[in-house]
Amino acid sequence: VTGVFFNKITVLGVGLIGASFAQAARKNGICSEIVGFGRSRENLARAQSLGIIDSFKADPADACEGADLIVLSSPVGSFLDLVRRSSSAFRTGTVVTDTGSVKGAIVHEIERLMPSGVHFIGGHPIAGGERSGIDAASPDLFASAKCIVTPTDRSDAVALEKITGLWMSFGSQVLTMDPDSHDRVYAYVSHLPHVIAYTLVNTVGENDRSLLDFVGQGFLDTTRIAASSPELWRDVCLLNRENVLESIRHFQRKLDLLEQYLTASDGDAVGGEFMKAQRLREGIGQD
Amino acid sequence: VTGVFFNKITVLGVGLIGASFAQAARKNGICSEIVGFGRSRENLARAQSLGIIDSFKADPADACEGADLIVLSSPVGSFLDLVRRSSSAFRTGTVVTDTGSVKGAIVHEIERLMPSGVHFIGGHPIAGGERSGIDAASPDLFASAKCIVTPTDRSDAVALEKITGLWMSFGSQVLTMDPDSHDRVYAYVSHLPHVIAYTLVNTVGENDRSLLDFVGQGFLDTTRIAASSPELWRDVCLLNRENVLESIRHFQRKLDLLEQYLTASDGDAVGGEFMKAQRLREGIGQD
Repeated sequence: VTGVFFNKITVLGVGLIGASFAQAARKNGICSEIVGFGRSRENLARAQSLGIIDSFKADPADACEGADLIVLSSPVGSFLDLVRRSSSAFRTGTVVTDTGSVKGAIVHEIERLMPSGVHFIGGHPIAGGERSGIDAASPDLFASAKCIVTPTDRSDAVALEKITGLWMSFGSQVLTMDPDSHDRVYAYVSHLPHVIAYTLVNTVGENDRSLLDFVGQGFLDTTRIAASSPELWRDVCLLNRENVLESIRHFQRKLDLLEQYLTASDGDAVGGEFMKAQRLREGIGQD
Repeated sequence: VTGVFFNKITVLGVGLIGASFAQAARKNGICSEIVGFGRSRENLARAQSLGIIDSFKADPADACEGADLIVLSSPVGSFLDLVRRSSSAFRTGTVVTDTGSVKGAIVHEIERLMPSGVHFIGGHPIAGGERSGIDAASPDLFASAKCIVTPTDRSDAVALEKITGLWMSFGSQVLTMDPDSHDRVYAYVSHLPHVIAYTLVNTVGENDRSLLDFVGQGFLDTTRIAASSPELWRDVCLLNRENVLESIRHFQRKLDLLEQYLTASDGDAVGGEFMKAQRLREGIGQD
């Protein structure tokens, strides 16, 4: 893929993902100007002084004026409001994309809010983890990471090609999925693990906070993502509620089973479950 | 602590922990000879050729002959059998220790099996994670790691001082705890996380194995310990059954609560739980 280029990119939400997107766009030479918008003027001024964005605006519509690529990279719960506040500035030919962790409930709504001639293509880079803020940003955050692009029946082919090319220029491995499939998959592989990590920390910490003084690397790794933004993950769970609930209930059934095996001191059954998991875990990325 | 020295150390179980123990003992100059015993002759020969052990024996009692420190570093489920097979070779003044993840059910039993004049002191280095085998061994595995030492009313003061000094000479942060407290604490901070990680992998992988193609770093970190030895963790769960079951039931109650909040679309309650967890997680090691 060559020739992906935008004159002016507007980044709505200059946190870890938005700032890294801006840096990657600059590093890979796919734009000439980057404008930012966000809730914190102080953060935007800092992003400008660090050269992450060229300028910023206090109003999202002003920030989008004249942009040929608009990126929604604020917490996913804020996308619809942001689009409503800025779409009057979208011009014919503008491509709008996002970096949110939920797609099904969002993509169709955003498509409906697009002015005529403006095309939305959803995207979800699988990167970032529990870090946040521009100090953790890197132009290489998306290199070698997966990025899920979620076109629909209504998607414009040229806009889709631009967004796919953009992520490929960042070095990402682009996978295409419809928005509802994306949400079913990521309920299991991302939203459920966050719910589990938060729950594990609360289980230990509420039982006796001093227990946390005895943890080793295993606990730290298992709960690393429990340091992620509570607001962001609350919104993800609410926006993808049915799929997340299904995955939680599936997990509960598996854990109930293990509890029964252990209650019965059934070592073969307990060991069998652990072995199945070990093989699945070691098989990841080995195909 | 200075002056901890053993003429001959016998390592029963030359895997990641046993081999790292041998390497640390050598590096820190606390012994002159190291003998190994284990199930696999091939592994022992390899450990000898790599200089991790000086020699090895096909029988545990032979391996313990003349040792003044004996280390049980095989999977914890095998300790009692190993002690029964080798204790005839323990001589007066010998100190026996272990590196197992369970203490309550083990320490008192092992104490009872000690010949007169032979002292057992339990130990649990919080290191190793999901890796296994001598290729992952390192003389620095225990440096900066916690090591829990679990004396009882019957423990010999001199033997306790030797074992504490030994781990300190390896650079470990030694914490002392009675065996039953150890098992209650580590049910929550280590055994439960393993159960959860195994269960999370099975939940995702059994729903649809191809889901595992879409995981990101968050899932990989959260389930890293699901690559740990199924046999070892089965034995840990069985040996520490009551505490592990209590921690599982505690976790189930917390997850049920979150499921109810999400079913009711109660964003404040969901976000409140996530925020509590985030603060607890970020507070670890910050005191």
